Amino acid sequence: MKGIIAKEPGGADQLIYTEMPDPKLEAGDLLIEVHATAVNRTDILNREGRLGYVNNPIIGVEVAGVVADTNGDQEFKKGDRVMGLVNGGAYTEKAAMPAGRAMKIPDSLSFEEAAAIPEVFLTAFQTLYWIGNLKKGESVLIHAGGSGVGTAAIQLAKVMSNAQVIITAGSKEKLDYCSKLGADTVINYKEQDFAEEVLQATNQKGVDLILDFVGASYWEKNYQSIDVDGRWVLIGVLGGNIVNQVPLMDLMAKRIQLTGTLLTPRSDDYKAGLSKDFIRKAIDYFEQGTIQPVIDITFPITEAADAHKHMEANKNIGKIILKV
Amino acid sequence: MKGIIAKEPGGADQLIYTEMPDPKLEAGDLLIEVHATAVNRTDILNREGRLGYVNNPIIGVEVAGVVADTNGDQEFKKGDRVMGLVNGGAYTEKAAMPAGRAMKIPDSLSFEEAAAIPEVFLTAFQTLYWIGNLKKGESVLIHAGGSGVGTAAIQLAKVMSNAQVIITAGSKEKLDYCSKLGADTVINYKEQDFAEEVLQATNQKGVDLILDFVGASYWEKNYQSIDVDGRWVLIGVLGGNIVNQVPLMDLMAKRIQLTGTLLTPRSDDYKAGLSKDFIRKAIDYFEQGTIQPVIDITFPITEAADAHKHMEANKNIGKIILKV
Repeated sequence: MKGIIAKEPGGADQLIYTEMPDPKLEAGDLLIEVHATAVNRTDILNREGRLGYVNNPIIGVEVAGVVADTNGDQEFKKGDRVMGLVNGGAYTEKAAMPAGRAMKIPDSLSFEEAAAIPEVFLTAFQTLYWIGNLKKGESVLIHAGGSGVGTAAIQLAKVMSNAQVIITAGSKEKLDYCSKLGADTVINYKEQDFAEEVLQATNQKGVDLILDFVGASYWEKNYQSIDVDGRWVLIGVLGGNIVNQVPLMDLMAKRIQLTGTLLTPRSDDYKAGLSKDFIRKAIDYFEQGTIQPVIDITFPITEAADAHKHMEANKNIGKIILKV
Repeated sequence: MKGIIAKEPGGADQLIYTEMPDPKLEAGDLLIEVHATAVNRTDILNREGRLGYVNNPIIGVEVAGVVADTNGDQEFKKGDRVMGLVNGGAYTEKAAMPAGRAMKIPDSLSFEEAAAIPEVFLTAFQTLYWIGNLKKGESVLIHAGGSGVGTAAIQLAKVMSNAQVIITAGSKEKLDYCSKLGADTVINYKEQDFAEEVLQATNQKGVDLILDFVGASYWEKNYQSIDVDGRWVLIGVLGGNIVNQVPLMDLMAKRIQLTGTLLTPRSDDYKAGLSKDFIRKAIDYFEQGTIQPVIDITFPITEAADAHKHMEANKNIGKIILKV
């Protein structure tokens, strides 16, 4: 089979589509004939050799396709359409997927649409609910509203929790799209002070929950934007890693719960449990069409380098898909 | 009635025992004839005028005594022995206590022993379980092991969760006492590198939970001492408030949940719910004597200034009680 690897750690042009051995199935793995996969920031870090937690040389952490070999699993049968997270090895024709985290694809969705779901919707679901404990009618501030996780989180928070959703993004096109997805307040971080806007939108109280992909450069404004007993979930440091000064009494005074998280390095059991909980609580909305995967653009897998460059240019709204 | 107030914001000598009006009962308040109360660090902050969240000019946040007026409450009757948190107004002969947070005193305990329970055991219970989510057999690092909250947390974690309990303290006397209370590993922070000792005691993994009263000066060593998916509860900044140069990726890499908390400023509902949960899950251990309030010394209430100086000297093991 063929798959995408990085010849050397480095830029997008290191990606080549080359002959690779078929995946070895371990006990509990399904063999998936891959029809579509998608680009994530973790793929870029892997390509650059900056992350060690996916050992498979083939890039990519999510696929949509068809079960080609059940490997003795009783829940799935050959031919089932499934999507889900893999431990690397996604940008290819065949992938090994632990059966516990395989999710049946709703009939209404294509493989490309399905490939836009696992990583970003599971991350949004995990950070909003498992970590952020979002309750009905609460308020949430979602940075990078136009990103894959952002577009997923807006929809989940709105449809599942009737939350007050406030987002930031950096272009009118992204802000308009987030409004269309249901965001109540959209803030252009290049032109507005987001903390002021958040306080105005919440009667000066601040939000109950922040999904923070930005980190250091937003630290103080995030603190201003959060209410007492707020939850602050740190899932990225696109705006820098190091915060110069953290006054701990501030965290005590507002009784903030600050949680750092990453999805990819977590255990098989965790991912299986998360996938099952997501299917149980959210998949009906995809079948009804009230929540939809958001696709920015689809490339053939042979053009994975262009797909990576597209993400690095930071202009996408929603997911970048690779068709196999 | 008489009660202790601070003449002017300042040192312990500002405390005077003087004639004050009887407390005004609001709906839902019991009137308590106070037999004993206890000293907390929050009392010192109030005396110094540095905290605004207790409005009552009479110092103190916990009492043990007898119900003198049920004020229409159905659960308690006149003469019941109760202990619990009050919204200020504890160092006195009569106190108003919201009935929802009154806890019946086990027959085996004196009023002085009972006055040693509410603030520190509720804080330890809250931080270990409500916030820290300690599970059976997990490991916990408790700083200031000889403090009121420390001595309470050691016992709760050991007796209720069979946890691996690791403590720090600054004198041999405190370390020995913590061992006697059940601590598995005791570390003299003046002589040992506590992070090294914690890693050694946990097969280099680190602990599942940290109760941190110290803050800035322990930041890096606490980070070294915590395991992946660890919970870090920040309940004091005795070692400084400002942490410099915090790398957020560290919090993500270890997926740490850092929660700042304070008990006194929380709502009546919260305190009532916490008190009831504590009674349900922990009070039997006090009746059996497997968990015991720890009293360092008892002063007559007329000597409250000396009691404050004793806490400020930081030499107490367990609680400082005022007998009314």
